Amino acid sequence: MHQALPSPAIPRSADLPPALCILGLGLIGGSLARAAQPVIPVIGWSPSEGTRAAAAEDGYQVADSLENALGAAVQRDALVVLAAPVTTFRPLLSAIDEHSPEVRLTDVASVKAVVQDDVAELAPRARYIGSHPMAGTAASGWSAGTDSLFRGAAWVTCLTDDSDIDDWATVAGLALAVGSRVVPADPQAHDAAVARISHLPHLMALALAQVGEHGGALALSLAASSFADATRVAGTRPELIRAMCETNREALIGAMDDALGIMGVARGSLASTGSLLKIAEAGHRARTAFDGRADQLVQVRLDGDDMVDQLLSVGAAGGHVSGIDRGGDGLTVQAWYPDLD
Amino acid sequence: MHQALPSPAIPRSADLPPALCILGLGLIGGSLARAAQPVIPVIGWSPSEGTRAAAAEDGYQVADSLENALGAAVQRDALVVLAAPVTTFRPLLSAIDEHSPEVRLTDVASVKAVVQDDVAELAPRARYIGSHPMAGTAASGWSAGTDSLFRGAAWVTCLTDDSDIDDWATVAGLALAVGSRVVPADPQAHDAAVARISHLPHLMALALAQVGEHGGALALSLAASSFADATRVAGTRPELIRAMCETNREALIGAMDDALGIMGVARGSLASTGSLLKIAEAGHRARTAFDGRADQLVQVRLDGDDMVDQLLSVGAAGGHVSGIDRGGDGLTVQAWYPDLD
Repeated sequence: MHQALPSPAIPRSADLPPALCILGLGLIGGSLARAAQPVIPVIGWSPSEGTRAAAAEDGYQVADSLENALGAAVQRDALVVLAAPVTTFRPLLSAIDEHSPEVRLTDVASVKAVVQDDVAELAPRARYIGSHPMAGTAASGWSAGTDSLFRGAAWVTCLTDDSDIDDWATVAGLALAVGSRVVPADPQAHDAAVARISHLPHLMALALAQVGEHGGALALSLAASSFADATRVAGTRPELIRAMCETNREALIGAMDDALGIMGVARGSLASTGSLLKIAEAGHRARTAFDGRADQLVQVRLDGDDMVDQLLSVGAAGGHVSGIDRGGDGLTVQAWYPDLD
Repeated sequence: MHQALPSPAIPRSADLPPALCILGLGLIGGSLARAAQPVIPVIGWSPSEGTRAAAAEDGYQVADSLENALGAAVQRDALVVLAAPVTTFRPLLSAIDEHSPEVRLTDVASVKAVVQDDVAELAPRARYIGSHPMAGTAASGWSAGTDSLFRGAAWVTCLTDDSDIDDWATVAGLALAVGSRVVPADPQAHDAAVARISHLPHLMALALAQVGEHGGALALSLAASSFADATRVAGTRPELIRAMCETNREALIGAMDDALGIMGVARGSLASTGSLLKIAEAGHRARTAFDGRADQLVQVRLDGDDMVDQLLSVGAAGGHVSGIDRGGDGLTVQAWYPDLD
């Protein structure tokens, strides 16, 4: 049901930026360069000389300094994409405010509220729309990137009361062009959601990997797919896990408390009555609902003045945007929306 | 490095039983029937008439009653395999004691100490060697079985001070014949290990599925591979998860406390200092060690009087048995053993 490639009905000139300026060329930035290059000219930059050389060798246009990258972005009316670790955003935002203050700006960090605040503080004139493509692997670095990383993935695009719908359409157009489904969300709602379905799973994988190790060589030699799958993301570089989890502290603590509560009740029930009925039935029901969630979507068409609210409703209900049209009457959006009948 | 198929050097007549009698034809019993039939005649039985009919229709020899199945087992000197849910073992063991008291017996349940005790109580004359093939999928039933389920899997074979090494060799020979690597283990050590690498991962998946659901439709629509992989086994039928987890209560509580402790410390650290350094580094190191564990094995040859102790040492160190020979001097076992240099 998901649109895997941009439909020819999307007018490229209206909803794709004339160029992309990607700051940071690791797994996400490098994959975005590869995926976007066939439809939009890309300028890349990385603080690492080795990464810049590797990207240039692979045929990508690479600026030799941040200042030059931002200068080129202004000249070509590019959308600037912060694809560096979120812990390095503040100096980048200060540089943007100095060299390209009114540029179109997005980022691909896995937390959104703190970035929204940093942009408001350090680059307040930037036309910023936060985004978060929900794609990745345990690998990292320029060489790990692929042009297919975003295909079929959810790509969160953030909206607030201040958001400019045309700037949003530019970022959403990029996400559609690389094969993602666009999920509009409020920054706080995004952070609460990813704490539960991305950050907490990383912490549980890290804990489980240690519990297995404490069982010694016999336990590890018996480990089959349930252990291997459940600990896979513990193979991600620790500093990347820390960057995303520690910057989403408040929401993650809430998700951890939910998990600790469910596990603690199950532990008490097992110790006192020997039964795991409650966790077994509730967990199975939740997983079954998760598996069936995509089957209920119907296509809808959004237009009108309250577009921000309409888009946020689509995302909050579990839907996503699949196309954007510009006619004489302004913006029209096609979306998949849960059929609650 | 793992031997995927029986080596021609294994003398079939010595180490494979003349026939297999499989009681229970679900995913595990049905897969074992399919995998063993090419090398050993199989008699199957299930309490379900529909399952018996399905297996017979697929060309397998099926007894129409438990009594007849056990009678055939005695007549053909078969190895009886308990492949029904562990919660149904006690009446089966009483029937074995009545109809085939001295039969060679194994089981495939995911807990071993409680079954060892039940056999000692209810079928004390049976030549019992407990086993546990570490293979499975979220699917169940005769139709879910495949002849490749055990290939490359760890197959635990239990040894105690009372074990008859020839009976052990028969069960180990079956496991090798269906492509598994044989891991000798004490029943209690097995239960402690699987609590950590199988039962706890199921409970964590059940908890995480609920935490995701509590995040609502937006959270589930953003869930990518980290959530999908970490909750996959929550799709297993709740009664199967309960049967294996509730029968391993003591060891599982220990594993849950270990996990709750690690998560609780991380929660406290995140709330007080904002840091997840400890869980991130220890978990990553544990997962990396898990990934590298198979690279250190060297082949060794076991013989002599203290074979039970030697075999238990192999399993406890993370090694496994890959072949069994019978010469004039008795049993010789080839094993892969960790190279600790």
